[in-house]
Amino acid sequence: MASKKLVAAVVGVGPGLGASLAKRFAAGGYSIGLIARKESSLQSVQRELEQNGHTVLSVTADAGDVSSVKNAFDTIRKKFGNEPEVLPSMIKNGKGTILFTGATASLRGSVGFAGIATSKFALRVLAQSMAREFGPQGIHVTHIIIDGQINTPSQVQRQPGKDINSFINSDTIAETYWQLHIQPRTTWTHELDIRPSVEKF
Amino acid sequence: MASKKLVAAVVGVGPGLGASLAKRFAAGGYSIGLIARKESSLQSVQRELEQNGHTVLSVTADAGDVSSVKNAFDTIRKKFGNEPEVLPSMIKNGKGTILFTGATASLRGSVGFAGIATSKFALRVLAQSMAREFGPQGIHVTHIIIDGQINTPSQVQRQPGKDINSFINSDTIAETYWQLHIQPRTTWTHELDIRPSVEKF
Amino acid sequence: MASKKLVAAVVGVGPGLGASLAKRFAAGGYSIGLIARKESSLQSVQRELEQNGHTVLSVTADAGDVSSVKNAFDTIRKKFGNEPEVLPSMIKNGKGTILFTGATASLRGSVGFAGIATSKFALRVLAQSMAREFGPQGIHVTHIIIDGQINTPSQVQRQPGKDINSFINSDTIAETYWQLHIQPRTTWTHELDIRPSVEKF
Amino acid sequence: MASKKLVAAVVGVGPGLGASLAKRFAAGGYSIGLIARKESSLQSVQRELEQNGHTVLSVTADAGDVSSVKNAFDTIRKKFGNEPEVLPSMIKNGKGTILFTGATASLRGSVGFAGIATSKFALRVLAQSMAREFGPQGIHVTHIIIDGQINTPSQVQRQPGKDINSFINSDTIAETYWQLHIQPRTTWTHELDIRPSVEKF
Repeated sequence: MASKKLVAAVVGVGPGLGASLAKRFAAGGYSIGLIARKESSLQSVQRELEQNGHTVLSVTADAGDVSSVKNAFDTIRKKFGNEPEVLPSMIKNGKGTILFTGATASLRGSVGFAGIATSKFALRVLAQSMAREFGPQGIHVTHIIIDGQINTPSQVQRQPGKDINSFINSDTIAETYWQLHIQPRTTWTHELDIRPSVEKF
Repeated sequence: MASKKLVAAVVGVGPGLGASLAKRFAAGGYSIGLIARKESSLQSVQRELEQNGHTVLSVTADAGDVSSVKNAFDTIRKKFGNEPEVLPSMIKNGKGTILFTGATASLRGSVGFAGIATSKFALRVLAQSMAREFGPQGIHVTHIIIDGQINTPSQVQRQPGKDINSFINSDTIAETYWQLHIQPRTTWTHELDIRPSVEKF
Repeated sequence: MASKKLVAAVVGVGPGLGASLAKRFAAGGYSIGLIARKESSLQSVQRELEQNGHTVLSVTADAGDVSSVKNAFDTIRKKFGNEPEVLPSMIKNGKGTILFTGATASLRGSVGFAGIATSKFALRVLAQSMAREFGPQGIHVTHIIIDGQINTPSQVQRQPGKDINSFINSDTIAETYWQLHIQPRTTWTHELDIRPSVEKF
Repeated sequence: MASKKLVAAVVGVGPGLGASLAKRFAAGGYSIGLIARKESSLQSVQRELEQNGHTVLSVTADAGDVSSVKNAFDTIRKKFGNEPEVLPSMIKNGKGTILFTGATASLRGSVGFAGIATSKFALRVLAQSMAREFGPQGIHVTHIIIDGQINTPSQVQRQPGKDINSFINSDTIAETYWQLHIQPRTTWTHELDIRPSVEKF
């Protein structure tokens, strides 16, 4: 029988921010659809969620391929009996949250980073334009600038001498995303930065 | 006997953001020192806090007069046996939060608003400079841009035809300030905006 | 016999800014290669330049097609015996100017303009990144924000009631581009805006 | 007999940008009123201008003292029979240029520079506000960000090993100010930066 819980789809799940977001939104009462290209990226996250009693479904899909993503969303909807929220259904419901993740390169261009900076600048103004366009219809769009390295296992291992407090904690980022998600519409944040206390900026 | 709880001093308490901040930090476990120029601004906030079982002290002082503020802080310290946090003690403890409140005029100059814009631009870069200077020492400095009208009783009364959802809710702002205050130092936000969903920006 | 004059290639010549730039750089001593998709866009500009005694060659090419543009540059080089400057030759010579034209949408996203804003934001940071990367090698990269309507014949005709002084004059923009081009490397501008005195911003 | 030429007052003349501005505006046809606190700062600039046939008057005044500046302007007006342009006369004439000089600290706060950054941020938005307020009345207000060291004799002497091309040339800055001054009102620049090719930014 289909669950009545709201469904959050996390696209591009890995051992870092994706896993933390899945856990935070599960704790907030959502059924979770995990989407990644490789099944191996999904298994440990799914296991952890299930061990904590959460409702979760893993589906592989390639975010670069529209029909592949569409199939994944269809699979999730059939399983949970409730659609993961996407822009058209958000507009219909007059309600929804879209969180875009930016980076240091969202704020300035630098030598050797023209490629990432052009796409991150474009993403920032896409978020800003969508906020202006869909905000009055109840869709909360926020651009979050993650300025620093996240404490993913691979990042931490690669830099054994580096103080763990100089990495951003992915669970705490997820908490911030959750707080943004539950802001009432009288009091929305549209852009904020996140960085460790020791990060130069 | 002196309380062992941490003390938050709210300077410039009125029926809007100041009252909401006092309530939120009281709920978070702080003893509250309320400071305002006129006793009449303090009484109803003090009463509401006490009715909810919080520890609170009201003191009148003029924020434009250094010795008057110093006296108020002394009074609060004597009563609670614990100092409200200010920058020097924060640096000594390697820990503290300073939240600056900006406005629409923090982001752009406009006709007839040169006066407020110059002071708000200056405040923004003061916050940014302090964040860069004191962040590595454990002091979390954030600049919050409040872009819209707050639902203070007088603002709401003055515009009877205006939808209540087009005002920013002061209790929800206070919740955001609290969330900033409890961010761990691996994951600090240094600037964010707050506005209602219907606000043009 | 081949000319010894420097060659400026103006890509996308029309009756507005392209024509004005061709005239200004011709007046500054450059041989001019005019490039546009349709020959009809080139003829009147070529005629006007020749009547003023300037050296000019028109070539059709499609800027969306790399080999088409390459052919056009080859034709221009054979005719003038001197290559129009492009980035690789600029780096070799330790000298060159690249001017990118932005718009109002380079500065902010707005309802209905997400498409143009994403590409203009990306262009802005591309210019900024190139300035940081190639500036120390002698290449002057500037991003010019044109905020308003240019006085092209078609724009002016379409809005018969509009004051001519509320359009930006394309010849004056071209003068600004020329002044940027001749700035010595001790004193470079990397970004500036241009708008009419009556434009809201 | 009084001159009919326009009068430019340069306040705070020294051997760097002030001297260069005086020379450039004299070359552009203006009578020059030189104002500085100490007569010694004025003599060599006055001599150089007179040797080139320009009309010049030196007056000492303290920019921090309103009546002192007012007296200096009165002296200049009596001598030249024409007032140096200030905002009220600009508004009356529907015409005028005001150029504000910013710095690196106009763009960001940094450790140890909170004092200069707050005043430079305030100056930037004052310029922006004045541009928006007085632009439609014909007053051209521009904010120029000088990001680097100017080649004043004392700066150059103090850093004997530093390449002269890594200093900004004050005469070239003055040329840029002049070009801004003569921009027609269809094509105004409101903000631009100036830095040497080798400057990190």
